Amino acid sequence: MRSRRSRRIRVPQPSRAPASFTTSASPATILVVDDSPVNLQVLVRILDGSGHRILAARSGKSALEIAERARPDLMLLDVMMPDMDGFAVCRAIKSRPVTRDIAVIFLSALGEVEDKVAGLGLGAADYITKPVQAEEVLARVSNHLAMQRLERELRRSRDLLDQELASAAEMQRLLLPHPLPEIPGMQIAAHYSTSRHVGGDYYDILPLPDSRCGVFIADVSGHGAPSAIIMAMIRALLHAYPAPPVDPAAVLKYINRHFKFLWGSSILATVLYAVIDPGRPSITMATAGHPPPLLFRGDAARPLACDGSIPLLLMDTPAIPTFEDDLARGDRLLFFTDGITERHNSNGEMYEMERLCEAFRASSNWPVAGALEQIVADVEVFAAGRESGDDQTLVLAALPEHL
Amino acid sequence: MRSRRSRRIRVPQPSRAPASFTTSASPATILVVDDSPVNLQVLVRILDGSGHRILAARSGKSALEIAERARPDLMLLDVMMPDMDGFAVCRAIKSRPVTRDIAVIFLSALGEVEDKVAGLGLGAADYITKPVQAEEVLARVSNHLAMQRLERELRRSRDLLDQELASAAEMQRLLLPHPLPEIPGMQIAAHYSTSRHVGGDYYDILPLPDSRCGVFIADVSGHGAPSAIIMAMIRALLHAYPAPPVDPAAVLKYINRHFKFLWGSSILATVLYAVIDPGRPSITMATAGHPPPLLFRGDAARPLACDGSIPLLLMDTPAIPTFEDDLARGDRLLFFTDGITERHNSNGEMYEMERLCEAFRASSNWPVAGALEQIVADVEVFAAGRESGDDQTLVLAALPEHL
Repeated sequence: MRSRRSRRIRVPQPSRAPASFTTSASPATILVVDDSPVNLQVLVRILDGSGHRILAARSGKSALEIAERARPDLMLLDVMMPDMDGFAVCRAIKSRPVTRDIAVIFLSALGEVEDKVAGLGLGAADYITKPVQAEEVLARVSNHLAMQRLERELRRSRDLLDQELASAAEMQRLLLPHPLPEIPGMQIAAHYSTSRHVGGDYYDILPLPDSRCGVFIADVSGHGAPSAIIMAMIRALLHAYPAPPVDPAAVLKYINRHFKFLWGSSILATVLYAVIDPGRPSITMATAGHPPPLLFRGDAARPLACDGSIPLLLMDTPAIPTFEDDLARGDRLLFFTDGITERHNSNGEMYEMERLCEAFRASSNWPVAGALEQIVADVEVFAAGRESGDDQTLVLAALPEHL
Repeated sequence: MRSRRSRRIRVPQPSRAPASFTTSASPATILVVDDSPVNLQVLVRILDGSGHRILAARSGKSALEIAERARPDLMLLDVMMPDMDGFAVCRAIKSRPVTRDIAVIFLSALGEVEDKVAGLGLGAADYITKPVQAEEVLARVSNHLAMQRLERELRRSRDLLDQELASAAEMQRLLLPHPLPEIPGMQIAAHYSTSRHVGGDYYDILPLPDSRCGVFIADVSGHGAPSAIIMAMIRALLHAYPAPPVDPAAVLKYINRHFKFLWGSSILATVLYAVIDPGRPSITMATAGHPPPLLFRGDAARPLACDGSIPLLLMDTPAIPTFEDDLARGDRLLFFTDGITERHNSNGEMYEMERLCEAFRASSNWPVAGALEQIVADVEVFAAGRESGDDQTLVLAALPEHL
């Protein structure tokens, strides 16, 4: 349906673009500036049949006024004029935001090389040699108008993609738990960043009966809108689970069964679901191709042992094993997607599990939110400016020493 | 995660674009063609410091060979040459697909206006007046290379958006029932088209116990990726309904409850769910803001009476009424989204319910698939080439006279 009221989710305009770049030129506005009435008349006559709107000015001062008022697309600007010469006009045009984008083409006498060099240095787009020839004027004008059209089209096209992805990202953020639910006896923090506005990563924190807590983390193959669609469906299914989701393997099998229509396609998702009981304390978990969480205890961090099934969405998963481990007060668990451990630096090295264990250990004196910031900062320092090609998710769950 | 194997769902490259259009020019290849060794030397010397790769040819024939082999970005081409002149070279360059995109700039003597006009008519991009001036050559070359870069960037940017939307659309098509399930005693056909690759419309056909059949149709506000995400979640929830979905109002309330996290945001969905029993025959339905289906019986078509609740996703819906109607063998039902009835033509008129009723009636002698094609064709004839700004869905369900 068409939108019926203002939306928080921005929806860009239809993206159907003209089939060709060389769309027939829509009329432009051209300002011709020359102190000689004869020259001015010649130029206006040359441009007259071009279909463009032609404005004329006989002095630099009046050129500036007209430029500011009429915002021409292009100016043909004589260099040698009394009072304010073409260079001064160009300088003024280029210094004001509202006129900066006007393409300036200088008119200068044959051989005045210094003029031309100086003009191009001032931000002029081109120049035409005087005495002018009609064909040259028309060719130059049409080339520069075509260039402006291309720039506008490019800006528009990029804006459309950005808007599309940004509005999908806004929607996706609504699917993540915010704020995180309060779980008695636990402290939890999460970090989520996507490689291109929308991502295939998903995490969730579910309050469960008997003061337990579910930590769900998933990573859909690929990025962008298709992965975001699957990620949203996984969220819908997790929240539609017909009983309290306290049995990790059953939850994973339930989700996989609902994606039966995708079995055999090549999209897949790694998923790990852990139920943490801060009372006993213990963790029960099942994984489908997803790396197990790291456990920090005492003064060391290591991955928990947890074999699992193949990723979801591929085929029926006959059996998904469940793992249970005792926890202790003071323990911390770090759940992550492989966008963290496989983050590359510009030498082509990966961050890897060892570095993540070390960063996790080094951050352990901090409250969870600060600790997570430390870990994220360590990943960024490692990457040293090389952007991530993958989504990155971290969930840190701590059982503080003292309740 | 990074993709681990070939995917059917194409995922475009990251869309991060350079911040500015005027990226510092990467080196281009320029072919200079002149039969005079002196002129050639002058041109090569002018271009020498430009950072571009310069190739030279002294005849039209050798220019063509080099152009085909080295694929220059730009050619500076003398008009007057023995044997094969510049015009013939330009004509040959522009007639071959592999060399067509080379920007040709003619070199012609001052005042040879006919040359210039003829050259531009042959597809040349520009010309330079001889004797050449270094500044003019450099300005012209750099302008045309900039234009080529812009064209490439624009093509790339549009491809990215198209790929992103196309891959989301591929995913979305997997969410629609295909092929439609066979329902004994009924014939069903569906039409689905989106205004921009991915849409917010959704329909589904659900086989139900006792040979009944569920027809679900929904329309999420907006278009594009955000609407597609919600559409996918509605599909997940419908298929996750914990019992056979035979109670339309209960199904709608179930879906709405699961979108509690969106209540208060401004996204909404109109939804209609009908359970058809071809045995009795009868229809039971509930609607949340969605237009009721049209009933064709005897020789007339009219909308079924069916008031409902406000659209879903907005707030709690305390009560959604259920409507029941008797059907008869020979009846046909047409479910639709308002992208059909609100389709505009270029006069600003809308297709409207009356036209849809008439097209539905006029198509009634056809089997369902053909009838739906007739109706879609009628909508397109009405729109007369004006593209739809909205998604369009039609589901036609018939109870044939003879089982």
